Amino acid sequence: MLGEMLKNVRNVHPLIHNITNYVTVNDCANILLACGASPIMTDDEGEVEDVTSICGGLNINLGTLHQGTVPAMIKAGRKANELGHPVLLDPVGAGSSRLRTQTAQRLLEEIHFSAIRGNVSEIRTLVRGAGASHGVDADAIDRVTEETLNEAVRLAETLAGNRKTVVAMTGVIDIVTDGKKTFCIRNGHPMMSAITGGGCQLSAMMTAYLSANSDDQLEAAAAAVAAMGLCGEKAYRRMSELDGNASYRNYLIDAVFRLTPEELDAGARYELR
Amino acid sequence: MLGEMLKNVRNVHPLIHNITNYVTVNDCANILLACGASPIMTDDEGEVEDVTSICGGLNINLGTLHQGTVPAMIKAGRKANELGHPVLLDPVGAGSSRLRTQTAQRLLEEIHFSAIRGNVSEIRTLVRGAGASHGVDADAIDRVTEETLNEAVRLAETLAGNRKTVVAMTGVIDIVTDGKKTFCIRNGHPMMSAITGGGCQLSAMMTAYLSANSDDQLEAAAAAVAAMGLCGEKAYRRMSELDGNASYRNYLIDAVFRLTPEELDAGARYELR
Amino acid sequence: MLGEMLKNVRNVHPLIHNITNYVTVNDCANILLACGASPIMTDDEGEVEDVTSICGGLNINLGTLHQGTVPAMIKAGRKANELGHPVLLDPVGAGSSRLRTQTAQRLLEEIHFSAIRGNVSEIRTLVRGAGASHGVDADAIDRVTEETLNEAVRLAETLAGNRKTVVAMTGVIDIVTDGKKTFCIRNGHPMMSAITGGGCQLSAMMTAYLSANSDDQLEAAAAAVAAMGLCGEKAYRRMSELDGNASYRNYLIDAVFRLTPEELDAGARYELR
Repeated sequence: MLGEMLKNVRNVHPLIHNITNYVTVNDCANILLACGASPIMTDDEGEVEDVTSICGGLNINLGTLHQGTVPAMIKAGRKANELGHPVLLDPVGAGSSRLRTQTAQRLLEEIHFSAIRGNVSEIRTLVRGAGASHGVDADAIDRVTEETLNEAVRLAETLAGNRKTVVAMTGVIDIVTDGKKTFCIRNGHPMMSAITGGGCQLSAMMTAYLSANSDDQLEAAAAAVAAMGLCGEKAYRRMSELDGNASYRNYLIDAVFRLTPEELDAGARYELR
Repeated sequence: MLGEMLKNVRNVHPLIHNITNYVTVNDCANILLACGASPIMTDDEGEVEDVTSICGGLNINLGTLHQGTVPAMIKAGRKANELGHPVLLDPVGAGSSRLRTQTAQRLLEEIHFSAIRGNVSEIRTLVRGAGASHGVDADAIDRVTEETLNEAVRLAETLAGNRKTVVAMTGVIDIVTDGKKTFCIRNGHPMMSAITGGGCQLSAMMTAYLSANSDDQLEAAAAAVAAMGLCGEKAYRRMSELDGNASYRNYLIDAVFRLTPEELDAGARYELR
Repeated sequence: MLGEMLKNVRNVHPLIHNITNYVTVNDCANILLACGASPIMTDDEGEVEDVTSICGGLNINLGTLHQGTVPAMIKAGRKANELGHPVLLDPVGAGSSRLRTQTAQRLLEEIHFSAIRGNVSEIRTLVRGAGASHGVDADAIDRVTEETLNEAVRLAETLAGNRKTVVAMTGVIDIVTDGKKTFCIRNGHPMMSAITGGGCQLSAMMTAYLSANSDDQLEAAAAAVAAMGLCGEKAYRRMSELDGNASYRNYLIDAVFRLTPEELDAGARYELR
């Protein structure tokens, strides 16, 4: 079933508008191409409506947030809402500064998001309206493990229900939920946390999956998460003893490029709740 | 003959000033180093004249355009014109938003460009003053193929003649013309469209070729285009069955680093019109 | 002894705040992860104090300098000074424009830097308050060689003494000094100058070493320099005849990822003055 979602990305070839940070933007563009979509990046208030209108989905990412860019995010988001395009929020670093936290909250009020993807502390921040995070990673104390899984699922379901959206809370176990049905996905590899921008890349790719699968937003988001985790595993198996995180970064995008729907169906490990 | 152009880049080692987008800027810097030039990137109005003065060429790229950067583009462009440095325009996404289209037109009025490099829909936009593009790629209907080649050549020659510049219109077949003499170049590989920033990289590298070959601007531009296409072929031959677009991106820049003038002369496939 | 510094980075896992350029920022993030630290990048005046407060060190880099970012640099720097966090300055391109030179001087007045890392022409600019540079590289005439080593050491020691800081002046021979004790380090490979951002990456990594070794700032800076040079050598040995600067960039970060304290102790080549 998840493989079907990837097949649709390859067939529809959606153009995705990204308002994102300057750290991982190149990787986001290349992973969109790798999965079968096309990227366009722009954040100037004077053109975001024009650009989002020719796209099939909008990815808003708060990394390296500039206050001056927030109006462009809102304009683009409202236009995408108006056109019925999926809009994804990646609240990078929500909880690590008041500006990020407040901006995330403001965007949630101004735009309807089809999906929100973040780590546990970012999601917690959106639920609580406050929080603390160790940079862009989840606090160790708040990682999703077998012990904390039930609580983590509740957290994600709360945000999904409150905001009528799909929430993808990623970590050792990934939780994807629309508040009613929940995927717990056990793909991935610890090496993924040794590269910058894995989360940003997943958010960009997820927007493409959402765009190409408008009738199955929950399954589309879960497919993107499982695909990313599976590719993280494949990339790790390819590492030589001289390879480190730079080669791994390339192998991960390469694996996304090579991933087939059949491999995704065979390799995805998840349970439904 | 084209190999001579590369030889001059390696000998002159030009320093190239780039006002460019934050998506592909790192690749632009590395491809400049790969071909034998040096990069410097800055877009602050307060220093672009100082910086362009110590450089040998200026590359202006409209990707991730910010309105606030346009005055810096104009200042840098006029200073480079004054000093007789080559100036290249890459009108990324012209036609996909009014801002991009208007900015491209404004720059064409304020600055004399030695060369303009774009895909067919961007070039069409500059000729017509309007247009529509699917992100940064040419519309499928407007691709340059054997069937549309004559029309495409006319389009490029029109812009070259109107603006007294060299036009490099790249696609499956690349057209490089000064309005009188035209190269149709058949190097390249479809894999090149699976990475972000191939066009931006070519524009940066072309500026280096223009800078090191001031008496042969048309040939310099054609040599850069043929070199990029040839390296795209070489990079593809190097791919293993696990490699995807991320590795291909590295192989492409690696191939530019390794390319010799002799290989370029032997591998360039073009006809003159 | 230098290996101990790396061991501490791996144990402390410092979070480093980077205000840096958009050209090499992704490499800076990945090299921080490679050495055992974590990156966070932000330059918005509205959040830099919040962010730097949750970090263990601050890296300020003048590449692609925007005038509008200077107040954020100063706010972050003062907050880090107040908290006793190490602050590093990488005065990229100081001497190539008045804006860069003046900004570097202003930052030196407003912030106390734990370390300054630059090439010889940048360091010279900070000492003299003026200068000229060929982009971001040192002028050929001003390279540090065996012949100019004594003079170069004096230059670095002058800045270190004047500013009560550690100065790392990198080139063919790297000089690291606190004005009293000086390391002359002979690791590295010419291939390192064929990639963009090697200096930026070293500055980011050095900030992590400073953060994890608060009692040994000079040794920490020297260890980072030796580690980078040693990894540059290891990366070169890994190159195949098809590899160029793009693969080398990956191999360099991979080598940082794989470097052990024992290898660093065994491979560092330096003399003390």
